[in-house]
Amino acid sequence: MITYDLTKAEGPIYICLYKNIKEDICSGKIKPDAKMPSKRSLANNLGISTITVENAYDQLISEGYMYSINKKGYYVADIADLQKPRIPLEKSVVIEKTIKNPNLAFDFSSNQTESSDFPFSVWAKLMRETISTREKDLLSVSPCSGVEELRSAIAFHLSSFRGMTVIPDQIVVGAGTEYLYGLLIKLLGKENRYCIESPGYKKLKQIYADTGVDCCFAGMDEKGIIVDDLRQNNAQIAHISPTHHFPTGITMPVSRRYELLAWASEGKDRYIIEDDYDSEFRLNGKPVPPLMSMDACEKVIYMNTFSKSLTATIRISYMVLPEHLANSFYEKLGHYSSTVSNFEQYTLASFISRGYFEKHINRMRIHYKKKRAKVLEVIRQNFSEKECQILENDSGLHFLLRLSTNKSDQKIKSLLLEKHIGIAAITDYDMKSEKKNRHLFILNYSNIDVNALKDAVKEVKKIL
Amino acid sequence: MITYDLTKAEGPIYICLYKNIKEDICSGKIKPDAKMPSKRSLANNLGISTITVENAYDQLISEGYMYSINKKGYYVADIADLQKPRIPLEKSVVIEKTIKNPNLAFDFSSNQTESSDFPFSVWAKLMRETISTREKDLLSVSPCSGVEELRSAIAFHLSSFRGMTVIPDQIVVGAGTEYLYGLLIKLLGKENRYCIESPGYKKLKQIYADTGVDCCFAGMDEKGIIVDDLRQNNAQIAHISPTHHFPTGITMPVSRRYELLAWASEGKDRYIIEDDYDSEFRLNGKPVPPLMSMDACEKVIYMNTFSKSLTATIRISYMVLPEHLANSFYEKLGHYSSTVSNFEQYTLASFISRGYFEKHINRMRIHYKKKRAKVLEVIRQNFSEKECQILENDSGLHFLLRLSTNKSDQKIKSLLLEKHIGIAAITDYDMKSEKKNRHLFILNYSNIDVNALKDAVKEVKKIL
Repeated sequence: MITYDLTKAEGPIYICLYKNIKEDICSGKIKPDAKMPSKRSLANNLGISTITVENAYDQLISEGYMYSINKKGYYVADIADLQKPRIPLEKSVVIEKTIKNPNLAFDFSSNQTESSDFPFSVWAKLMRETISTREKDLLSVSPCSGVEELRSAIAFHLSSFRGMTVIPDQIVVGAGTEYLYGLLIKLLGKENRYCIESPGYKKLKQIYADTGVDCCFAGMDEKGIIVDDLRQNNAQIAHISPTHHFPTGITMPVSRRYELLAWASEGKDRYIIEDDYDSEFRLNGKPVPPLMSMDACEKVIYMNTFSKSLTATIRISYMVLPEHLANSFYEKLGHYSSTVSNFEQYTLASFISRGYFEKHINRMRIHYKKKRAKVLEVIRQNFSEKECQILENDSGLHFLLRLSTNKSDQKIKSLLLEKHIGIAAITDYDMKSEKKNRHLFILNYSNIDVNALKDAVKEVKKIL
Repeated sequence: MITYDLTKAEGPIYICLYKNIKEDICSGKIKPDAKMPSKRSLANNLGISTITVENAYDQLISEGYMYSINKKGYYVADIADLQKPRIPLEKSVVIEKTIKNPNLAFDFSSNQTESSDFPFSVWAKLMRETISTREKDLLSVSPCSGVEELRSAIAFHLSSFRGMTVIPDQIVVGAGTEYLYGLLIKLLGKENRYCIESPGYKKLKQIYADTGVDCCFAGMDEKGIIVDDLRQNNAQIAHISPTHHFPTGITMPVSRRYELLAWASEGKDRYIIEDDYDSEFRLNGKPVPPLMSMDACEKVIYMNTFSKSLTATIRISYMVLPEHLANSFYEKLGHYSSTVSNFEQYTLASFISRGYFEKHINRMRIHYKKKRAKVLEVIRQNFSEKECQILENDSGLHFLLRLSTNKSDQKIKSLLLEKHIGIAAITDYDMKSEKKNRHLFILNYSNIDVNALKDAVKEVKKIL
C-alpha cells in the first residue's frame, strides 16, 4: 500500500497527504484508474485518523485527481483530461499588451520588494484561521472606510511605529494607493491645482492626467520641494514624500517642513498629501516624525501602503485624514463600498495586532541593511571614487550613483539595455521636458540578485 | 483529562480541537494558569496524532489563550488581558458617521442578497486549497486586468451562461463596479457627456458627479430608455441596464435594442455601457441575450459583478471591452495595478471553473423563486386587486407594487418609517427634480424575512 512520511508535515496533515498523493498521480507513479486503498486501511497504514484521509481524498476528488464509484471505492482519474483548458471558441480578436523590458538579465530599475522575503507561512496560518473562525464577519458588509479591526490595528501601529496619535475613524483603507488618490481627489475637489515634485514619482503625473485634474510641478533643492514654486504655480494641493523622496532620496529637514506647513495654513483650500511609502525601511539614524504629526492646522493627509512593506500582491493601502476631512469623507463619500475584501482586511489586522508585522519589518531591515552593505561593497570594489560616486541616504531601498562619463544619460541607458541591463537615470523622473544630463542613476537594490551584481557592475564600468 | 468528541469535526481536526479548548478557556471551564496535558498524552487520550494537538496548541498560543514554559509544559493564559483592546491614546477627535435607517424592523428597500445563502463552506475549502497549493502564484504580481485564470473562467462562464463569445484579454477585473466605472471614464474620456436612465440607479448619478463628468438623464417608456432623449441631450455614452432595469423592472425588447445600437453607431465617440447586474437571477422565461452579443460595431461595454450573485463582501466585478477599447485599455491604463487580491481572484477562478458558481446560481434561482411565490401569496392574501396591484417581471430580485391611496408617496414612506418599515417609491429614483406621485413602490425581496412579512404587509394596509 502507498506509504508516506507525514511526520515532517507543516500545517494540517491532510494537506500533506493530499500533496503526496497528487504528486504520485501527476508523476504517473500511481496509474490512471488504479484503485486507491479504502480510507480506513490507508488511515491504519499511516497511523492517522480516517477523517484525515477523507479530507485528503475529498480534496483530490474535487480537483479531479480521483473519482469514487459508489460502494466500490476510490480510483485515480485520467489526468490527461485535466490539462485541457476550458476556454471559449477563439475569435479573431487581437489584444496587444505592451511588455515592459521583457528580456532583462539584470534590472536596477525595479523597485519591487522580493516576494521570497514575505512570511507566507505565517500569513497562510492567519488566513486559515480567519476562514475557520470568522465566517460571520466575512459575510458582513464592511464600512466604506474598511473594517474597524484593521483600522484599529493600523492606528496602533502608527502610534507605536511613527509616533502618530490618530483614531481608527480617521483611517480609510483602500485597494492600493492609486485608488486612494482617486478618492482623495473626489474629497478635496477636482477644481484644485495639484502640485507634484520634479523629479518625482512618474506615475503620479499619469494618474493626475488620467483623472483630468490640473497638475503642475515644483522643483527640488537639497531640502526637498521648493515652497516658492508652489506659490508661483498657485497650487492648492502639494503631493510630496518628505520621509524619503523618490528618486533623489532626500529626507526633508524640519525647517522645510515648517515652511511647507506655513504655506498650507495660508489658504483654506491648501493641503499637503504626505506619501510615506517606504518609511518602514529607514535603515539608520533617528526616526523622522511624519509631517502629519507636526501639523496643528489639519492640513496634512498621510498615506501609506502595505504593498511595499509586505508584498506587491497585497493590495491594501490607507490614508489618515485630519478630523474635518474625515467628517466630510463620511458625509460626501460614505456611499462608496470598501474596495478591499473583508478576508484580507481581517488577516492583515491579525498580522499587525499579533506583532507579526513589526517582526517582519525588523527582519527586513536587517536583511536590507546587509544587502545594501554588500551592494556598496561590490560597487566600491569595481569603481574608484572618481569613476562612481555613491550618494547615500539612511532611509529607503534605493540610492544614487553619479557616474563619471561624457556620454549622455540616454546613451548610457541604451548601451546597458543592449547588454540586457535595466537602469533609470534621475533625469527620467523630471516632470518638465528640459532634461539635462546629470549622470545620476538610481540603484534600486530591493529586488536585485547580489550574486549576479558583480557581472552587471562590470558591464556598467565597460560602457562608461 | 480534557476530552472532546472530534468525530463530528468539519474540516481539519486541529481546528476543531482548537475551538473546543478555546471555548472552555473563554467560558472559564479551564481556569487561568491551569497546566494543560502534554501533547503526547492529549493525543493518546483523543486518539489523534501528536502533530494535530501541536497545531491546535500553536494556534492557541499564538492567539494568546495559552502559553508555554520551557521544559515545564503548557498553561492557560489569563484572558482578561486579551479582552482589553490595544488602541492608541484617545484624542478629542470626533468623526460623525451617518447611519442609514438604523432601527428598521422591516426593510423592503434593501437590495442586499442574503449572506446565509452563500456557500461559505465550499468557498472556505477553495480558499484553503488556494493557500496550500498556490504560494508562488499568490506572490506574483498579476496583470492590470486581473489574473489570467480568473479571466478565462469568466470568459467560459459568459460563453455558457450568456452566450457571449469573448476572449479573456477583453475582460478587466476590478474591486467593485464603482471602481470600474472610474476606470471606464478614464478610458472613454472625461470630456464626453454621460447619460443615465431616469428613474434609475441613484448611486450612478452620485458617482458621475463625484468624478466631475457631465451627466444627463434620459426618460424611460415601457420599452426602456428613450433614444430620442439621448439625441436631444447630445449624449455620447449611454449607461443602461437592459436585462432588468432598476427600479422599473423593464426588460428591453429587441426592437429598442437595435434602435440603441443604431444610435451608437452614428457617432465615433458614442458607446453603451451595459450593466447586467442581476441577470443571473432571471427566474422565468427565455434568456435575453446581452446587448453586447448583438453588437457588430464594438460599441457596447459589458459590466457585471459577483457582489450581487455571490455575496456583497466579495468585491470582484468585471467589464468586457470591445477589441479596440481593450487595446486602448492596455495602452493607456496598463500602468494601473489590479485592485483585487490574487488570493480572491484564484479562489473565484476555482469556484467558477469547477462548476460551483453555476450550481450556486441554480440553487439561488430555485430559492428566490420559492421566496417570490411566498411573498406574492402574502400580498394577495392581504390586499384586494384594487388596493394593491403587482407589477411583475420575470427577472431579478424585486418587483413593483401600485398602492391605491390618495396620500402622497412621501407621506406613505414617512408613515411606514414611524412603524419602523423601510420602503422606497419609484419617484425616489427620478433623477430630475419634478417628482410626481405615482404610488409605485419597490419591493426588494432578496433580503426580507418571509415570516415577518405578514405583519409588515398589515401595517402597509393600515396606513393606505
